[in-house]
Amino acid sequence: MGKRNKQFVEKITAMEEDFAQWYTDVVKQANLVDYGPVRGTMIIKPDGFAIWERIRDELDRQIKATGHSNVSFPLFIPESLLQKEKDHVEGFAPEVAWVTHGGENELSERLVVRPTSEALFCEYYSKNIHSYRDLPMLYNQWSNVVRWEKTTRPFLRSLEFLWQEGHTAHATYEEAAEETAKMLNVYTDVLENYLAIPVLRGRKTEKEKFAGADYTLTIESLMHDGKALQSGTSHHFGSGFAQAFDITYLDENGESQFVHQTSWGVTTRLLGALIMVHGDNRGLVLPPKIAPTQAIIIPIAQHKEGVLDKAYSLRDQVKNLVRIEMDASDKSPGWKFNECEMKGIPVRIEMGPKDIEKNQVVLVRRDTGEKEFVALQDLESRLPILMEEIQENLFKRALLHREQKTAIATNMDEFKQILAENPGFIKAMWCGDIHCEEKIKEETQATSRCIPFEQEKIADTCICCGNEAKEMVYWAKAY
Amino acid sequence: MGKRNKQFVEKITAMEEDFAQWYTDVVKQANLVDYGPVRGTMIIKPDGFAIWERIRDELDRQIKATGHSNVSFPLFIPESLLQKEKDHVEGFAPEVAWVTHGGENELSERLVVRPTSEALFCEYYSKNIHSYRDLPMLYNQWSNVVRWEKTTRPFLRSLEFLWQEGHTAHATYEEAAEETAKMLNVYTDVLENYLAIPVLRGRKTEKEKFAGADYTLTIESLMHDGKALQSGTSHHFGSGFAQAFDITYLDENGESQFVHQTSWGVTTRLLGALIMVHGDNRGLVLPPKIAPTQAIIIPIAQHKEGVLDKAYSLRDQVKNLVRIEMDASDKSPGWKFNECEMKGIPVRIEMGPKDIEKNQVVLVRRDTGEKEFVALQDLESRLPILMEEIQENLFKRALLHREQKTAIATNMDEFKQILAENPGFIKAMWCGDIHCEEKIKEETQATSRCIPFEQEKIADTCICCGNEAKEMVYWAKAY
Repeated sequence: MGKRNKQFVEKITAMEEDFAQWYTDVVKQANLVDYGPVRGTMIIKPDGFAIWERIRDELDRQIKATGHSNVSFPLFIPESLLQKEKDHVEGFAPEVAWVTHGGENELSERLVVRPTSEALFCEYYSKNIHSYRDLPMLYNQWSNVVRWEKTTRPFLRSLEFLWQEGHTAHATYEEAAEETAKMLNVYTDVLENYLAIPVLRGRKTEKEKFAGADYTLTIESLMHDGKALQSGTSHHFGSGFAQAFDITYLDENGESQFVHQTSWGVTTRLLGALIMVHGDNRGLVLPPKIAPTQAIIIPIAQHKEGVLDKAYSLRDQVKNLVRIEMDASDKSPGWKFNECEMKGIPVRIEMGPKDIEKNQVVLVRRDTGEKEFVALQDLESRLPILMEEIQENLFKRALLHREQKTAIATNMDEFKQILAENPGFIKAMWCGDIHCEEKIKEETQATSRCIPFEQEKIADTCICCGNEAKEMVYWAKAY
Repeated sequence: MGKRNKQFVEKITAMEEDFAQWYTDVVKQANLVDYGPVRGTMIIKPDGFAIWERIRDELDRQIKATGHSNVSFPLFIPESLLQKEKDHVEGFAPEVAWVTHGGENELSERLVVRPTSEALFCEYYSKNIHSYRDLPMLYNQWSNVVRWEKTTRPFLRSLEFLWQEGHTAHATYEEAAEETAKMLNVYTDVLENYLAIPVLRGRKTEKEKFAGADYTLTIESLMHDGKALQSGTSHHFGSGFAQAFDITYLDENGESQFVHQTSWGVTTRLLGALIMVHGDNRGLVLPPKIAPTQAIIIPIAQHKEGVLDKAYSLRDQVKNLVRIEMDASDKSPGWKFNECEMKGIPVRIEMGPKDIEKNQVVLVRRDTGEKEFVALQDLESRLPILMEEIQENLFKRALLHREQKTAIATNMDEFKQILAENPGFIKAMWCGDIHCEEKIKEETQATSRCIPFEQEKIADTCICCGNEAKEMVYWAKAY
């Protein structure tokens, strides 16, 4: 393993020193990702993909449990189809990849490599929805999409990424609104209860909403450096796409009506969130519910008689309770400790000759570093509870961090001071005018993250123009 | 459901009359697939995708159980990278889609939308394999690929399809050979024991092998019309790609060696095989192990008091034993029968007032049409056994069909006569010369399907040129 393992002994950059470099070090050294040959593309390696598979499986379960069916739509969109909805094409056309040749011939019409699939689903719905009895149509797909981004970072912003995109059609505006909210709730549950990432929930401003949407709901999380990450969005399209694509149905009275649509998605960027919310200067820290490996056994003095046998029987004892691995390689225990810390495995189980004598093991938590001696006979009851404790602690810690990095600003000086001294979410009142939003961004680089469902009245006037305030908004610098 | 259901009352074309039209009718009316807006692309609808998910999940389980890890490699391949292996680029370059523009700029190097990912994995292996301790590297990915085919048919040959592609690197030729055979065995198990499709196993000729491979192993199945379908392939690359991409490792003596590689894949074309092996003139017939819905309850006279209640309690009674659905819609029972036959659901359970009186249900098998009255108390033991019986019967029926359509030819006249009268697999001796293979194809349209592992000596001389025969080959017209 020569070259590969040398990386583990080289220390990673401390996050306080250079957060961006720390992030890059972690994704590389935890073996999550590598760069593809085309600029901005990524290779998700086994350890990274196993995490994505666990996120995907839980989310897929919830998507199906809420009545949706998986489908597979094509990769290519004819240029003319993308152009049907005006706002949508304006939002996406500048950042797509174009296929111009197939085999040895130039195509008569250029094809877009899907940046998102609204156009394809709408075309399908226009042909396949006829009557109110066909509604709702609740589709989802797991796919790859391409957006020609200028600056890229693994997971956070890449030329190609993996995601799920739900696309639904409903009889009424209200039903579509209910769907939009329901899927935001599913995302909230997966983030908070599986990834242990607390989220702010709310509506995007007109400026920040999805190209072609009536409104966009969002969940926003806070990274360790005080920057926000948009972590999942759910869009209500009203009947805008239906009008552009002529998607109508006959209602119970035989009258033609436009459908109302939604779309919603989360992406591999969630792996970036996991790293930047829970990670530390020794590497990744994974919440037990999403960790492909929840515990790893590291035998101490494994060359001594009986140690390995005992370690294997320990593994067999608990393998149905937790996802467990064993590192019986010939590397030193210290090396193995560093490796499993870098990978973020929630619990390391040490077992040496002395422990065997005492009929015990040592449990070491990845999140706190705490050691705990546990009698072998208590391990089966202790391990699952310990997993819950770690899961809970990670969520609480992230929530506390967010609270410590959430501040109120009532004027622009305060706003700028917060960003300079303790960046994070800033709560501030806003008049609703896009010019103020743009001015704030220009002066501070912070953008509106969401208009939270839970409103507070902090002041009467807009922080920017001083006119009457309409809403409280969460602002932050964001990825 | 107006327009959509009208299709069910229109009869589908009989397969004896026009097999190609029968196939098209089934994929459309069983709601498996629709056409995408770009010629040759397909939309896999919920009922089709649910079957693919079941195939994928079982295969994924076996791929992981044999030690492989899932990964995700990029969609785009730089032109220069594809060109590194000479045979490979010659085989694929004429049928790829080219990306020439990203965003608003022309690219300095054209990108290929992956038709297969050898070039990407090789590039990665060349950077990430250093020592014998890094080997074997056993990767797999589930992805979409694009091949610019001229004539297309849903599932069988499409511009874009879904598949898994395994890519592995090994220290020795022998280890890679073992891997190549192992994965062919996995495919054989999934086809025969899950899809109930018997396969012939063997090696491809030099002419038919994968572009860039040392040799290709294949499983071949026979469709109802007597045409063969290549259903899964496993390639041994020797060190050809390793030499082109400079993939070396230091062996235990510190000497530099080329790795030996394999790749293997199956695709959504398996859905085409399912349709054409088991389907009949009433639609799809699904083997129970792969059927998303294994049984459907159709209440008779459901408006009568107690019928629906009883049907729902019946569903609850068996829902943990089989994947069961209930059709309580207001369509007529006859309509529902047609629908669930078209969808290929293995067992239909009828229950009406008379059955309730007698404490029984009626089970109707999709494969044979046989009816069976079963006392309610026996249903839990009977249903799982019935599923096994159907699974077994489908395999036996398909095997019998293949045997009836496998013939021996010892001269070209016999060969042609078989193809004219009872097309299927033809066993015939071959000298090993590509010119004979080409001549046979030219004269008969039949191609060599495989050189089977189980050889028989039918004659001493090549069926085409009369020179000394080297091997027995299975020939057939193929999809």
